[in-house]
Amino acid sequence: MKLWDIYATMKQDVSYIERELERNIRSDHQLLTEASLHLLKAGGKRIRPVFVLLAGKFGTYDIEQLKRVAVPLELIHMASLVHDDVIDDAEMRRGQLTVKAKWDNRVAMYAGDYMYGQALMVATELRQPEIHRILSKAMVEMCIGEMEQIRDFFNTNQTIRQYLLRIRRKTALLIAISCQLGAIAAHAESKIGYALYRFGYNVGMAFQIRDDVLDLTGTEEQIGKPPGNDIRQGNLTLPVIFALQDDKLQVPLLREIDRIREQNGDTDVSAALNMIRQSNGIKRAEELANRYIEKALAELERLPNIRARRNLRDIAYFIANRNH
Amino acid sequence: MKLWDIYATMKQDVSYIERELERNIRSDHQLLTEASLHLLKAGGKRIRPVFVLLAGKFGTYDIEQLKRVAVPLELIHMASLVHDDVIDDAEMRRGQLTVKAKWDNRVAMYAGDYMYGQALMVATELRQPEIHRILSKAMVEMCIGEMEQIRDFFNTNQTIRQYLLRIRRKTALLIAISCQLGAIAAHAESKIGYALYRFGYNVGMAFQIRDDVLDLTGTEEQIGKPPGNDIRQGNLTLPVIFALQDDKLQVPLLREIDRIREQNGDTDVSAALNMIRQSNGIKRAEELANRYIEKALAELERLPNIRARRNLRDIAYFIANRNH
Repeated sequence: MKLWDIYATMKQDVSYIERELERNIRSDHQLLTEASLHLLKAGGKRIRPVFVLLAGKFGTYDIEQLKRVAVPLELIHMASLVHDDVIDDAEMRRGQLTVKAKWDNRVAMYAGDYMYGQALMVATELRQPEIHRILSKAMVEMCIGEMEQIRDFFNTNQTIRQYLLRIRRKTALLIAISCQLGAIAAHAESKIGYALYRFGYNVGMAFQIRDDVLDLTGTEEQIGKPPGNDIRQGNLTLPVIFALQDDKLQVPLLREIDRIREQNGDTDVSAALNMIRQSNGIKRAEELANRYIEKALAELERLPNIRARRNLRDIAYFIANRNH
Repeated sequence: MKLWDIYATMKQDVSYIERELERNIRSDHQLLTEASLHLLKAGGKRIRPVFVLLAGKFGTYDIEQLKRVAVPLELIHMASLVHDDVIDDAEMRRGQLTVKAKWDNRVAMYAGDYMYGQALMVATELRQPEIHRILSKAMVEMCIGEMEQIRDFFNTNQTIRQYLLRIRRKTALLIAISCQLGAIAAHAESKIGYALYRFGYNVGMAFQIRDDVLDLTGTEEQIGKPPGNDIRQGNLTLPVIFALQDDKLQVPLLREIDRIREQNGDTDVSAALNMIRQSNGIKRAEELANRYIEKALAELERLPNIRARRNLRDIAYFIANRNH
């Protein structure tokens, strides 16, 4: 099953969110509009808006209210991507040139700030202070997550716990609150909001682990950028941490990571990739991702058995099996 | 009269805002806290929080409400400074190393995003949606202003109107809304809020023009960084635009600006500085700044004659005469 097949049941509303994203991005400043639209048009799974809509089905579904959560969440996500690309000096994202590559770092910096600002402008149309509080808290946590990632670059002593805490902040929280805020905007019962939060959190953790695995095992065609990006910049992800626990691999892999660091990532990383692929790190990471998916599915059991619940289950399965 | 003498009448509340700024900047992430505190401790005039407090005197003054506007405004200002320093590749700010110089661009990027996020977290404690709307709109306008500045780098054909529109967005709007939001948070009459907005706007315009003049005429001791920074990065400010209208100076100054651009600003700019200083550009810019100050003072006449009005007048005079 493809993601867009799951979305088909709410095609009209997903398209409406897409148009609203575009409308809100447009300003009277041409370059900011172009740069932001470039990122928007490069695609993306729109997981966050879709989760908002599906969560809204558990309360009083009103697309005009839900869009005021869905649009800011996607814009915050996009803003963080643009800023990450500046930091990572990334050339490609989603198979397209990044904003910083197509224009420059300055444009990427202010396009990110601009999208954060636009996100808040849309959210302020909602008169639920709880939503504003949850959104701004998530922005702060995401920054902390990014900083933790930087702090841990090339840290070969990091623990699995450190990795999990980092991706929790960097990725899982925003997905968790996408589900929760959809429920809140639809005035669903708060226990439904919490169950959806936990569903989103677990899906988000699985999603990021899968993403990190793909960066090590995927082809350029699958992931829209060359594989090995993470290790090149020193971002040691779960399969690497597992591989470093392998007695036979530890010494050569440490040596290879050291060499990559000395070259500032500007080197062939295929030897490291091969070692990690041959270790049991990929399998163990996938197992952990699957455990998160199982937890996510268990949370769904607490919810009323409506079509949206089945859609959420399908998305969780999709993420469990994703190879793109 | 010194700025801190004017602040003396509200010393306690200004100190309270300072402590609140520090408290809100602290998080469980050490590096983000350190980087943000570094910028906070480097000082600054705290014009925006002070304007919030003074504007609040025209309504029901409640420091607990006003701080929820004053703290976000200063944090948004600080966040924009950190991001500007990344873009400008600046080493010094307020006589101290910049965040990007003391740490690196990555820390500066996420410290900026983090301060934006913290700003919003504080603001969300206020249940006045109008305030959120005005704040997020200002963030968007500031980004557009920064982008306009980039677009106009080394553009020797730019008009005075372009310059004024740019500094309006980059600087004057945030100062204008500082005054307005103080009035709104204190539930003052809306016509008082508008008069304060226009006061702040005119002061802000004068402030930025003076700042731009200082960058051309000040000493390193006065401005906390070497003079000529703006022209080095291609930011052609009002005195330069005026100087380019001087028939005798035009050709040599254009040639010099061209040379600076070719060297990417990595060159001695004293010849250009001398030409601009000898032109009537400085004087004409100062005259325009004074006209804005006069307009600001005229706005004050619409307000009740309370002590806060006299404080605002003193600050306007201070800015009219500032040389640091």
